Amino acid sequence: MPYVNIKITNEGVTKAQKQELIAGATKLLVDVLGKNPATTIVIIDEVGTDNWGIAGEQVTELRKKQ
Amino acid sequence: MPYVNIKITNEGVTKAQKQELIAGATKLLVDVLGKNPATTIVIIDEVGTDNWGIAGEQVTELRKKQ
Amino acid sequence: MPYVNIKITNEGVTKAQKQELIAGATKLLVDVLGKNPATTIVIIDEVGTDNWGIAGEQVTELRKKQ
Amino acid sequence: MPYVNIKITNEGVTKAQKQELIAGATKLLVDVLGKNPATTIVIIDEVGTDNWGIAGEQVTELRKKQ
Amino acid sequence: MPYVNIKITNEGVTKAQKQELIAGATKLLVDVLGKNPATTIVIIDEVGTDNWGIAGEQVTELRKKQ
Amino acid sequence: MPYVNIKITNEGVTKAQKQELIAGATKLLVDVLGKNPATTIVIIDEVGTDNWGIAGEQVTELRKKQ
Repeated sequence: MPYVNIKITNEGVTKAQKQELIAGATKLLVDVLGKNPATTIVIIDEVGTDNWGIAGEQVTELRKKQ
Repeated sequence: MPYVNIKITNEGVTKAQKQELIAGATKLLVDVLGKNPATTIVIIDEVGTDNWGIAGEQVTELRKKQ
Repeated sequence: MPYVNIKITNEGVTKAQKQELIAGATKLLVDVLGKNPATTIVIIDEVGTDNWGIAGEQVTELRKKQ
Repeated sequence: MPYVNIKITNEGVTKAQKQELIAGATKLLVDVLGKNPATTIVIIDEVGTDNWGIAGEQVTELRKKQ
Repeated sequence: MPYVNIKITNEGVTKAQKQELIAGATKLLVDVLGKNPATTIVIIDEVGTDNWGIAGEQVTELRKKQ
Repeated sequence: MPYVNIKITNEGVTKAQKQELIAGATKLLVDVLGKNPATTIVIIDEVGTDNWGIAGEQVTELRKKQ
């Protein structure tokens, strides 16, 4: 029954990587809390780098400096 | 003043269906709690089927098995 | 499989009213989109009136003016 | 370490305006609570006007009446 | 920089279990996507069983039937 | 009409500070995007330090090391 929401920047995440995140997060809830995987929901939000800020700056700009 | 967030997979939901969800959720808050509809906000998030997991699997894959 | 999050102020909502919100939101998703109720999750967040602002003011203060 | 999520309709918000929102929200947390900006995250969600309802109506329709 | 939100019912989760969830979710983002753990945030929301519904029913009631 | 959610740890935030966050976030949306303050909602979530992780560790533990 748990609900997990993962927010990441939309920088080329593949379908296979998303599947790994979904499987891994579900397994974590089963292993740590004994939750029922059948009703465990995982939602991945991919956010544009203009729309994600850290340290007061857009990730778009931070990537240019790296 | 309530805030309602509805997350569904992006599988062909029409504009009219979204209007029904918005009207229905707003009415629910008015009917049950007497909330003011004028400041009731409803936000619908449509999530790609690669990004939604249940039972540890992507909905994309679950749909293929159905 | 849908996920619904309802945020309201914590002003004396009863257990029965919460049940009505849960049943009503689930029914809405079934009626409008034909979703499976068995995996429809509804989460109600009750927020303190000091922590909820509208029009730039805390609900605590707005209530005093009413 | 704070996390700020800003949801707005996707009506032509520019990259520069998003940067202003990110910088402003981060500064607010620093000024009011002395939080560390280095780990303050701001995420902006732009929502389609069909998917945002207020007063029981889609913003798409409300805009037509204005 | 990722953000993970885990919502579970408040049914006796220990501090050690929460630490396992935080460590596990952070490791998942590092392993699958190579994310920087230093700015990975995990927030656990514990929700009362009256406030969590599945299949149109409060978890409080579902627990009584089990 | 915007919606702002601010998540912070529950470490002695006063009512006056919450009011400053609400007023400041509302002003930001008005100043940058010309939004209507009357329907701008700000919700502050205070999260226990056992339930907030960064860098794979609970804030409770990080505070002890500071």
